[in-house]
Amino acid sequence: MENKIPFRVLMGPGPSDVHPRVLRAMSTPLLGHLDPAFLTIMNETMDLLRYVFQTENKLTVAMSGTGSAGMETVFVNLVERGDKVIIGVNGLFGTRMVDVAKRCGAEVIEVHAEWGSIIDCTAVEEALKQHGDVKLVAVVHAETSTGVRQPLEQLSELVHMYGALFVCDMVTSLGGIPTNIDEYNIDAAYSGTQKCLSAPPSLSPVTFSERALHVMATRKTPVQSWYLDLSMIQSYWGEERFYHHTAPISSIYALNEALQMIKEETLEAVISRHTYFGKELQRGLENLGLSLLVEEGYRLPQLTSVCIPDKVDDVVFRKRLLEKYGIEIGGGLDSLKGKIWRIGLMGYNAKQTNVALILAAFKDVLTEQGITCK
Amino acid sequence: MENKIPFRVLMGPGPSDVHPRVLRAMSTPLLGHLDPAFLTIMNETMDLLRYVFQTENKLTVAMSGTGSAGMETVFVNLVERGDKVIIGVNGLFGTRMVDVAKRCGAEVIEVHAEWGSIIDCTAVEEALKQHGDVKLVAVVHAETSTGVRQPLEQLSELVHMYGALFVCDMVTSLGGIPTNIDEYNIDAAYSGTQKCLSAPPSLSPVTFSERALHVMATRKTPVQSWYLDLSMIQSYWGEERFYHHTAPISSIYALNEALQMIKEETLEAVISRHTYFGKELQRGLENLGLSLLVEEGYRLPQLTSVCIPDKVDDVVFRKRLLEKYGIEIGGGLDSLKGKIWRIGLMGYNAKQTNVALILAAFKDVLTEQGITCK
Repeated sequence: MENKIPFRVLMGPGPSDVHPRVLRAMSTPLLGHLDPAFLTIMNETMDLLRYVFQTENKLTVAMSGTGSAGMETVFVNLVERGDKVIIGVNGLFGTRMVDVAKRCGAEVIEVHAEWGSIIDCTAVEEALKQHGDVKLVAVVHAETSTGVRQPLEQLSELVHMYGALFVCDMVTSLGGIPTNIDEYNIDAAYSGTQKCLSAPPSLSPVTFSERALHVMATRKTPVQSWYLDLSMIQSYWGEERFYHHTAPISSIYALNEALQMIKEETLEAVISRHTYFGKELQRGLENLGLSLLVEEGYRLPQLTSVCIPDKVDDVVFRKRLLEKYGIEIGGGLDSLKGKIWRIGLMGYNAKQTNVALILAAFKDVLTEQGITCK
Repeated sequence: MENKIPFRVLMGPGPSDVHPRVLRAMSTPLLGHLDPAFLTIMNETMDLLRYVFQTENKLTVAMSGTGSAGMETVFVNLVERGDKVIIGVNGLFGTRMVDVAKRCGAEVIEVHAEWGSIIDCTAVEEALKQHGDVKLVAVVHAETSTGVRQPLEQLSELVHMYGALFVCDMVTSLGGIPTNIDEYNIDAAYSGTQKCLSAPPSLSPVTFSERALHVMATRKTPVQSWYLDLSMIQSYWGEERFYHHTAPISSIYALNEALQMIKEETLEAVISRHTYFGKELQRGLENLGLSLLVEEGYRLPQLTSVCIPDKVDDVVFRKRLLEKYGIEIGGGLDSLKGKIWRIGLMGYNAKQTNVALILAAFKDVLTEQGITCK
């Protein structure tokens, strides 16, 4: 395989580069999915996920699919046909939640904000007032399509005041900024492994509060997905160890190792590191004369969206960056296509070397394209 | 990770042992899921899957989940609420198909056979006659819970005579016995990577005929799963390269390498190897005085179910085998629990060494348990 893989520095919106220790973990020989030694690794992984999510939630497991499977897990398990759900849409992943929820038969009420802005509490409150009996409210904590950081505390209070469940997309936030599931009183969250956890894509960590468990336990209709049905998956990850499907052994090795490394560094230090280098990068880009999409205060340190200067061709620039430096960054999606680049400093990549490299490469390639950098 | 993994020989119903070359492929640094070099690997993987499935089907891809996700993919994409489907149930995976199909709103007609026997063509024909307008008929090609090999050719003819689609669970058959998708005229099939392909679990190869594509293209209702919706997944694996979800990069490296190894050996040789060593094992077990669950002629070479002698405790025996030899074999499921053991000789493990080892270990541990072997 190695001869097929060119040198790359993965500074897009994910996957991010994976630490050699995690890569090596994946090449460890397999165990059976019911082997006592593997069950120990699963237990460890659940504990480590609780630590990184900052929760005591018993139901904290890794689903056998990527982040989008985690999104679907939350909706198929919590929603029944006809349920009203409010979804904050301020980027692609809000839009995706709407699609997923509708396929579960939900009556979806969308609360919109401009891509690059946060979802406003007042707008959510109006929707809650207007539509009685809302089952859940969902927002994206770290919008991967824009780089916006959604504040959660006030929203969580509001949602619970109206008796709804609070659901968060934490695909890009987990391990990069505090997710504080218990402190913020979040009822369900899902994430991915290929962002700030710096493991390969293939699993989706999810966590559910006692309230969410109660909602699942008192469903009137079966979960429409067999593969993602938590009533059965709980019995495999739990003490019963009922066989459901074959767990992706090697991917769990990788996740376990990646989480172990976060624990060794401590979550606090990992988050500080993201904060520090994210700011360094953002300052550096502004110093080059570029402007950032998101207002200060709502920027994610792990994912920065920078506006493409008028005279620069998006695709030409990114192609050059890839070919000359091996650096991958992301383009804009949907309405932001051709308008922004997305630069990730996630997990293992949130370090001085990468900040210096990307700024130097940007300066060089922008200059080639006829832009005078400051 | 390595210090947590005891020595194991995986001779259960899967996962099977993975060749060191495939393990190493997984430790290769990641590429982005839209990187030109990764798209080349995806194209290669599709071609290799077509080779192993023996098909020209354009829609031949690896779904981002384990074999059960492949099962769900087939049903959510082909079935709409109210559709009639006939499912052959002669083991656990037939039962699972029934469950999955019902969650899609299908009206399921079950055709049963004893666990350990094949599904009878006449019984399927009766069901087809009795219920007009059946959309699809599904059977398990290699029942992992019993070791039965289902003949497909006659069944396929029959199903098509009644205008239905023919669907096969090929989780344990792909790469072990001929699947011959085009020759047998199979409309949809799904498999797993951790059986005869000897890659780690996490992907599910699927393939769909033109007729199946037409059925999907003319659906009246949306697919209930966003994650498994092939109308979108086709556009990512196809020429459009539309972003859907982040592909499990490292798992695809592993699958690519495993398939590459099959191509190097040639599919014909791989299948002969399974046939040869499967027979060796079955003869050896009978020579020890044990009897096999499945009638000769319907036995899978890659998975042998052997009846547990009356005086032997299932769990004690398997525990001893694991602790003394590091050998994992499978127990029976559901009604066969405590009655059979399941021994896999899949992919990389279908070799002389493993036949000799398991027979020697069986003889030793059976003797310890007071059984006089021949």
